[in-house]
Amino acid sequence: MIKTPFLATDGIIELYDENNNFKGIVLIQRLNKPHGLALPGGFVDIGEKVEDALKREMKEETSLDVEIKRLQNIYSDPKRDPRFHTASAVYICKSKGEPKANDDAKEVYIYDLDKIPLDKLVFDHKKIIEDYLLSKEQIL
Amino acid sequence: MIKTPFLATDGIIELYDENNNFKGIVLIQRLNKPHGLALPGGFVDIGEKVEDALKREMKEETSLDVEIKRLQNIYSDPKRDPRFHTASAVYICKSKGEPKANDDAKEVYIYDLDKIPLDKLVFDHKKIIEDYLLSKEQIL
Repeated sequence: MIKTPFLATDGIIELYDENNNFKGIVLIQRLNKPHGLALPGGFVDIGEKVEDALKREMKEETSLDVEIKRLQNIYSDPKRDPRFHTASAVYICKSKGEPKANDDAKEVYIYDLDKIPLDKLVFDHKKIIEDYLLSKEQIL
Repeated sequence: MIKTPFLATDGIIELYDENNNFKGIVLIQRLNKPHGLALPGGFVDIGEKVEDALKREMKEETSLDVEIKRLQNIYSDPKRDPRFHTASAVYICKSKGEPKANDDAKEVYIYDLDKIPLDKLVFDHKKIIEDYLLSKEQIL
């Protein structure tokens, strides 16, 4: 019997307004445990591609249709999720429009890159966002 | 009960000789079904980081110690593995020395990039290697 970590996916959604001005990235207040601020995301279903799971979860939690820009990394430290071993494929994506909390998201927020409350983030989402911010600096 | 695809990892090992001359990439003849030519790889264990699983599998199947260069992509088409739904995190890595078949590998081969028998590859490893060759062209 094969046993592997659960496979999840999380999205760093870069949100733009109708005039293509960058508004910030989208974070959610989790409805389920562990409570706290998080990137939107969820588990990949059997029979579903990771990219499709990402788009489905972004839609379910934030009501946004997203376009994937690139895969940032896979985060798989066995201790990153306090419940069980979960590996998450993290994608950077972009979207337009107004996010609206849904499904596992209690509230949804838009944060300027220099105003993200990193210490309020659950799981290893602080590290994920720090890696994202670092990669943006390297591109500039 | 959460059910997600099994999580695996495969490696594109760029092999160099002692004088840092590129020798080719390492492929294996699989001992277990499905039989055929494949990238070395295997399942991620619970409690193990994906990068550690990659290094363990490369060592088990080819006897090589590898250094990870970068994550190429995650391949998760539900039909890519004929047995069940498996998502594979594919890493490009480098190594030195002489590969030796071990574990699930019946034979181990070193192929020049322009001599890889793409149509003999199992799973979606043909596509994975084509993506790799394409990314190398774009870098050059």
